Amino acid sequence: MIQEEQIRAQIEKVVLPEIPRTLGQMNVLKKIERQEQSVSVLLNSTGLSEKSQVKIQKLIRSAVARLDKTLEIKIEFVESAPKEVNTFGKIIAVMSGKGGVGKSLVSGLTAVALRRAGFEVGILDADITGPSIPKMFGMTTRPSFDSKAILPVISNTGIEVMSLNLLLPSEEESVIWRGPMIGQVITQFWEDVLWGKLDYLIIDLPPGTADAPLTVLQRIPVSGIVMVTTPQDLTTMIVKKAVNMAKHMHKPIVGVVENMSYLYVAELNKKIELFGKSRGEEMAHAAGAPLIAQIPIDPELARLCDQGEIERYDSEEVKRLGEFMEKTPMSCDPACTSDCNSCNCHCEGESE
Amino acid sequence: MIQEEQIRAQIEKVVLPEIPRTLGQMNVLKKIERQEQSVSVLLNSTGLSEKSQVKIQKLIRSAVARLDKTLEIKIEFVESAPKEVNTFGKIIAVMSGKGGVGKSLVSGLTAVALRRAGFEVGILDADITGPSIPKMFGMTTRPSFDSKAILPVISNTGIEVMSLNLLLPSEEESVIWRGPMIGQVITQFWEDVLWGKLDYLIIDLPPGTADAPLTVLQRIPVSGIVMVTTPQDLTTMIVKKAVNMAKHMHKPIVGVVENMSYLYVAELNKKIELFGKSRGEEMAHAAGAPLIAQIPIDPELARLCDQGEIERYDSEEVKRLGEFMEKTPMSCDPACTSDCNSCNCHCEGESE
Repeated sequence: MIQEEQIRAQIEKVVLPEIPRTLGQMNVLKKIERQEQSVSVLLNSTGLSEKSQVKIQKLIRSAVARLDKTLEIKIEFVESAPKEVNTFGKIIAVMSGKGGVGKSLVSGLTAVALRRAGFEVGILDADITGPSIPKMFGMTTRPSFDSKAILPVISNTGIEVMSLNLLLPSEEESVIWRGPMIGQVITQFWEDVLWGKLDYLIIDLPPGTADAPLTVLQRIPVSGIVMVTTPQDLTTMIVKKAVNMAKHMHKPIVGVVENMSYLYVAELNKKIELFGKSRGEEMAHAAGAPLIAQIPIDPELARLCDQGEIERYDSEEVKRLGEFMEKTPMSCDPACTSDCNSCNCHCEGESE
Repeated sequence: MIQEEQIRAQIEKVVLPEIPRTLGQMNVLKKIERQEQSVSVLLNSTGLSEKSQVKIQKLIRSAVARLDKTLEIKIEFVESAPKEVNTFGKIIAVMSGKGGVGKSLVSGLTAVALRRAGFEVGILDADITGPSIPKMFGMTTRPSFDSKAILPVISNTGIEVMSLNLLLPSEEESVIWRGPMIGQVITQFWEDVLWGKLDYLIIDLPPGTADAPLTVLQRIPVSGIVMVTTPQDLTTMIVKKAVNMAKHMHKPIVGVVENMSYLYVAELNKKIELFGKSRGEEMAHAAGAPLIAQIPIDPELARLCDQGEIERYDSEEVKRLGEFMEKTPMSCDPACTSDCNSCNCHCEGESE
């Protein structure tokens, strides 16, 4: 007899009509029950139009028929809020305090590295007034949404992205909003986007220690913060402000990335420290976390980002970013009770 | 007989006990009246402690005595709000939308250039959560203030500066504030600081198009905006958001500065375009304003900024910044009526 697991596996492979993601990836399949001659399938209708619900039913029926043509299939949809459907492995916030140090670059490269390693990855672009992620990934598709959920846009290699720039009529449009509006949009990106089942959600924070980072750190159960810095003393001063913010809010910093560490000039076979001597180790010490990577200034990387092809870039440092996230224990997920010992975290039951 | 003008000139040279600025520079001298055998002097007591008011009286008496020992001197103080005392020639906001492109650098260098040309210059650091100006100018003095006024801190070459970092217990302290608080501090820097009589007030804006730039553009009668960009396409996209914000708010952009335009490698006698081909002209076109300067990446400049010695830096581009501000007509000052033709501005009676 065809087992429940086999049926589940088959159904989870069905691809959504709206975006190139499977029912399994988006946590659409809620429950499956195998009876004598039939199988009952319960699905989340969250974010799916009626038209695509009909399509999905057809696809499921033919997927199951491939296993056993005689099986009777009952399909039901139930409406749930996206935040009840979404599950996340680790939620990593990329922070700096300082602008222009490469938070979006580090967010993007981390996502790329983890995706390459086979993980399900999403990026929540929390930089509402200056979002860079869609441009780096060459995204122009608008997210589809109804009154209850927004579907993320999927990159060439399958990374889910939500950013305000995907919702604006033009990428150069400005949003002249005060803090409360910005906080509201970030909350919507967290609560109303159907992220599905992600191993990693990367949150790209804007500069500063005001509304946007405050909302993210208060509302979203961040597992770990990656702090981005550059060698300039001026930068480290401001990054230390962000470190202090994270500490004030009892949020764990898991590592530090130094960007623009040096420029390698091939013709001279020489590294030039354009912005001064590396201060990566100093920052790591101040943050109480390891220095994960030192990313050089690379005109090729700048070019790829401008052309929306960040997913083509690879380097030792990029690999290191992915491996670090994979190996590093991070603080308890929200479901974890404060005295748990099972989640391999280093938060020691820390809670807000 | 000693004329009123001579007495005025003598009194205006008196230096304040609190900061190395004269009564003339700080608009402390409100009125002077020469009678037969006496002279009446009316002073603003704004920001001056009683102790320093006594000191100033003594200094004035001996200054006048140097002209004519027989003159009787009556000195009176009157309390005014700083905003009634302050006068500004041009108010220039340095904006970008994007972080880390060098807004503070351009603000600092513009101030340095104008100061070198002999002008009275102040910098209002409107980047509340990531202020860079005090560090660049090597400032560690705390501003003195009473309940009615704050005195700016004076740089080595005599530039007035007000920045939140001057008020924090440590430069690495973070301010985890939401928008309204940030707006309030900026308003205080504008209304409660005794700037005195400045030819130029430079306002260094933070990244984004949210609370801080919004407050500045709504509350402060900015004469002109300088837009800072870098060659990266990603940057120009976000700078265009700031350009759109300025246009929405009917604020004149007077010029564009491209930073990090290239790196000159002396050993190769070659310019390397690290972040791609210059887009300065493209940005200038989008902003409807001239390209003022293209500042290269210069490790020496980075070093001086880190050491608080930006005032030692000089280059052709820096000169150009100062000359541009000096020569360029900017929109009417707040006192100017909307149909005036006398202020040589190009705002054509534009008003909010």
